[in-house]
Amino acid sequence: MSPKITTELLKQLRQVMKSPKYVQEPVQAYIVPSGDAHQSEYIAPCDCRRAFISGFDGSAGTAIVTEQHAAMWTDGRYFLQAAHQMDNNWTLMKLGLKDTPTQEDWLVSVLPEGSKVGVDPFIIPADQWKRMSKALRSAGHDLVPVKENLIDTIWTDRPQRPCRPLITLDLSYTGVSWRDKIVALRSKMAERKVPWFVVTALDEVAWLFNLRGSDVEYNPVFFAYAVIGMNTIRLFIDGDRLMDPAVREHLQLDSTLEPEFKIQVMPYGSILSELQTVGASLSPKEKVWISDKASYALTEAIPKAYRYLTPYTPICIAKAVKNASETEGMRRAHIKDAVALCELFSWLEKEVVPKGTVTEIIAADKAEEFRSQQKDFVELSFATISSTGPNGAIIHYKPVPETNRTLSVNEIYLLDSGAQYKDGTTDVTRTMHFGTPSAYEKECFTYVLKGHIAVSAAIFPNGTKGHLLDSFARSALWDCGLDYLHGTGHGVGSFLNVHEGPCGISYKTFADEPLEAGMIVSDEPGYYEDGSFGIRIENVVLVIPAETKYNFKNRGSLTFEPLTLVPIQTKMIDVNLLTQKECNWVNNYHQKCREVIGAELERQGRHEALQWLIRETEPLMRV
Amino acid sequence: MSPKITTELLKQLRQVMKSPKYVQEPVQAYIVPSGDAHQSEYIAPCDCRRAFISGFDGSAGTAIVTEQHAAMWTDGRYFLQAAHQMDNNWTLMKLGLKDTPTQEDWLVSVLPEGSKVGVDPFIIPADQWKRMSKALRSAGHDLVPVKENLIDTIWTDRPQRPCRPLITLDLSYTGVSWRDKIVALRSKMAERKVPWFVVTALDEVAWLFNLRGSDVEYNPVFFAYAVIGMNTIRLFIDGDRLMDPAVREHLQLDSTLEPEFKIQVMPYGSILSELQTVGASLSPKEKVWISDKASYALTEAIPKAYRYLTPYTPICIAKAVKNASETEGMRRAHIKDAVALCELFSWLEKEVVPKGTVTEIIAADKAEEFRSQQKDFVELSFATISSTGPNGAIIHYKPVPETNRTLSVNEIYLLDSGAQYKDGTTDVTRTMHFGTPSAYEKECFTYVLKGHIAVSAAIFPNGTKGHLLDSFARSALWDCGLDYLHGTGHGVGSFLNVHEGPCGISYKTFADEPLEAGMIVSDEPGYYEDGSFGIRIENVVLVIPAETKYNFKNRGSLTFEPLTLVPIQTKMIDVNLLTQKECNWVNNYHQKCREVIGAELERQGRHEALQWLIRETEPLMRV
Repeated sequence: MSPKITTELLKQLRQVMKSPKYVQEPVQAYIVPSGDAHQSEYIAPCDCRRAFISGFDGSAGTAIVTEQHAAMWTDGRYFLQAAHQMDNNWTLMKLGLKDTPTQEDWLVSVLPEGSKVGVDPFIIPADQWKRMSKALRSAGHDLVPVKENLIDTIWTDRPQRPCRPLITLDLSYTGVSWRDKIVALRSKMAERKVPWFVVTALDEVAWLFNLRGSDVEYNPVFFAYAVIGMNTIRLFIDGDRLMDPAVREHLQLDSTLEPEFKIQVMPYGSILSELQTVGASLSPKEKVWISDKASYALTEAIPKAYRYLTPYTPICIAKAVKNASETEGMRRAHIKDAVALCELFSWLEKEVVPKGTVTEIIAADKAEEFRSQQKDFVELSFATISSTGPNGAIIHYKPVPETNRTLSVNEIYLLDSGAQYKDGTTDVTRTMHFGTPSAYEKECFTYVLKGHIAVSAAIFPNGTKGHLLDSFARSALWDCGLDYLHGTGHGVGSFLNVHEGPCGISYKTFADEPLEAGMIVSDEPGYYEDGSFGIRIENVVLVIPAETKYNFKNRGSLTFEPLTLVPIQTKMIDVNLLTQKECNWVNNYHQKCREVIGAELERQGRHEALQWLIRETEPLMRV
Repeated sequence: MSPKITTELLKQLRQVMKSPKYVQEPVQAYIVPSGDAHQSEYIAPCDCRRAFISGFDGSAGTAIVTEQHAAMWTDGRYFLQAAHQMDNNWTLMKLGLKDTPTQEDWLVSVLPEGSKVGVDPFIIPADQWKRMSKALRSAGHDLVPVKENLIDTIWTDRPQRPCRPLITLDLSYTGVSWRDKIVALRSKMAERKVPWFVVTALDEVAWLFNLRGSDVEYNPVFFAYAVIGMNTIRLFIDGDRLMDPAVREHLQLDSTLEPEFKIQVMPYGSILSELQTVGASLSPKEKVWISDKASYALTEAIPKAYRYLTPYTPICIAKAVKNASETEGMRRAHIKDAVALCELFSWLEKEVVPKGTVTEIIAADKAEEFRSQQKDFVELSFATISSTGPNGAIIHYKPVPETNRTLSVNEIYLLDSGAQYKDGTTDVTRTMHFGTPSAYEKECFTYVLKGHIAVSAAIFPNGTKGHLLDSFARSALWDCGLDYLHGTGHGVGSFLNVHEGPCGISYKTFADEPLEAGMIVSDEPGYYEDGSFGIRIENVVLVIPAETKYNFKNRGSLTFEPLTLVPIQTKMIDVNLLTQKECNWVNNYHQKCREVIGAELERQGRHEALQWLIRETEPLMRV
């Protein structure tokens, strides 16, 4: 991976930062956030502005360019990748390390007095605008909205915004019709006495209408907004995709409906003016509910006194708690996904060991091939992390020809991959050795496994927030002076985004909502040694009620049930470091893999993979 | 404990809430916070306004009185106590339970449109003012400062503000002179380019000047403020206590000093006007550093643009990291404290079992008597919680004649107590049974012990915040569906407040500062069964560097060393629920108690207590 040369681009950007054609007054700094106008984590090529200007294309990062400097803030998952992808024009700001300045502090330290800092008001979330604007103002600077995106002005071959066909999901997948979801949303709005609700996140629009799209790679969403009133539904969406008879039928666009369920379809680009119209029409005490992470532009469209801001929208919270149809779908998807991975690992074992011709890219492609053979496969749920040896230490590595290593019997192989099936979304990481792991590699793997089990088997009271479980995942590593620089888990959508709020398991997440039965999160502790290897063990787990001996204050307890059912390589485990309870956990887990996935492999006639599964699920024995 | 009858008082308060003599406009609600003008947790009798108006005298709680309602917010430690102490005029708002409204939400739900909510601006912290004012304003109400405290106007026999003599502490106790503390503080101020610093917390004034007082029971502090400039020191303090030659000598008030170390002594009541003078004299860019928890009145004295607010002051952070002299003092204090407790428990065993005449109050008094025999004893560090049977479930119980139970061989006895010695502050809880505990009592005790050990033996990276350790203390309880409704630990001062910031171990504390070697906190998980019993095991522990096998990113690791060395009753332990590691921890701990405290008991010729100690520290054996 050679870095992107950005000298010329930065020169051009610095010119437009001063050009009266684009800015009312010159800006001394320009912020390029990661997201799009919907604050998406995964974005369409036309929105990859931060990657365009810097070369760094990880999923999280904010670039700031001043007249003299260019700096990039990203987190521990991306330190190595960002350092590889950016040239010397850029300074890497490592989030989470003690001495790393915040963007605000850094700006204050480098800017001349009374500077203007520009940003695209559609891209910056309102809460970030507020924080940054306040910090800059108190240091004598100004954050200013720059209507025309300055990156777009210098991005000559910028791709078009995608506008691909929609997929309709029937009740067997969603469990609840879009009409009933609107009814439930309106009842939440009535509870808070807020007659308007703006849907800005792409996965929230998709979930609400039981539609899916493919405008963004890996995330089955489509570019749209919605504004829901107590008696009106407005959907802002472009293209002729609403001409599709199946979609028209699904949304009942041509039916005679009660007016409060009649969907008005409007152009995507008209959201701002429509919202301004709604804002202007409000009577006193009427408010508009909008996420505090929505863009500054949309938030400003609603007069301040009429805004009802919350960190998580009622759709975000409802979407996180999967109903029975969604849970069953997720189970099916994970069974199919496990079948594909058993095929892959069985194939790798045959290929890697004797031949040594399988590269990271070939392995990733093969994983996709096996997944695509499964029913209702749609696409991958994120770029496959197929990494061997030192590449495994690059936490969100994606193999490209320049970095592509060949799998061997001498290195650890880490595969973090997942898929979108029409019935569910998967995300699984397994770390394998095709030869003989060293004692040290086994030791580290076993600590990570102990952390994985500590979370997976944790029992905790109803109402507990996920961040209170994060240290369980680290305890075994901490005991030996080890750790990993990323969170332990994220919410997972149901045939939707592989990362979703409002729950998660992280030392950083203090605004997370409490875990509830029906929520689905990942459990993925790891250990990474720069230049040597990476280890991660990830299952997707479902929050379920736990049976406990007692029941303090009648609160009830919760625990997790693994949905992912793929063997954890026992060769990598130092059994003597496990407690009997941990050993039993592994054996029970493998027993379940053998039963459930074994039956499906049998049904699909995949006999070699079945043999592999049986070998890999032999019980561990403590000596 | 019978509740305080408040009908007449509330009537009077509601009258003054409308009286033009005290308020510019009538206020429809009046807030009575817990603290004093220094936001102290423990307060002088003259400041116990919330207890006066409601009857509830726990250490935490906020009362709000409207024309129709009176409500009290307090946390899980005090639910039972508050319910006992308040009459039917009051509604108890249980903080931490899901359905409990915030004060703001509650006010909005009960107030008529356009109400005024009054509060004493010297009592409400600025950060609370800001939050509450914003919430009320957005609902059409106003938070207004009421200069004269309305409780004081109806409190006819309100005690005088105390003004007792000061104690000077020399270098052998403090390790650092007040001059050097001023130098260090000024260097922090220079780092942030803030030329003024306001010391508002009583323990921060005491720590900075190496002085102690006794204006507030249990907390060796005195009523004072200080304003530190880069070249000036102003100490705001009343009374003739600065006439004491020892104090004058200590503060070098009569010496010829460099002007920047010359202390100007000013009347306590002049802080506001002096601060306004400082505020008015500032040149642009000059700021005044003040805690964001300082009172609204003092914060408002500084023009907004000149305020530099932080959640923790540099004094708070410096004070938390104990130096070698302070650590040694804390060790000595804990040895003496353990001697007193060994005496007490040995005495209790002789008295309770055969005679059955010892009440909770007698036991508490006896504990104080034994402590007072120790060198440099000053006073208790908080009201002794001496509770048996169901009283043990009242988390911050204090025995009074009406509730006083007799210790027996049939009930669990919980003693949470501590003292101020000139060399250190102690806080220890032990839970004992003088007869034969039931299997269930032992089971619960053992889970609490497992949690205590999990925190005490935890190894964690440098930079870890205490709240990330909280779940370790709960895990064993959670596994069985049990929990406790309080945090796990608090910072402990060095001959200062028994509760101090900025560190702690709690699921609630997200603004805590990272733990550092030299910090001292408590480790005190518990389990409480309303109406039956309470269990808590508390040690004060010192944060120390940990030796680990590896050292990820060279961050280094930390762990805890117990300073408290009092046996944990092995009779209460179900050994079969302990792992071998936990069993070893108990045995090593008891071995250390036997060695260190045994030697001191021997030296003090306390032979019966020594025999008791030896019996109580016999090693556990797993079967």
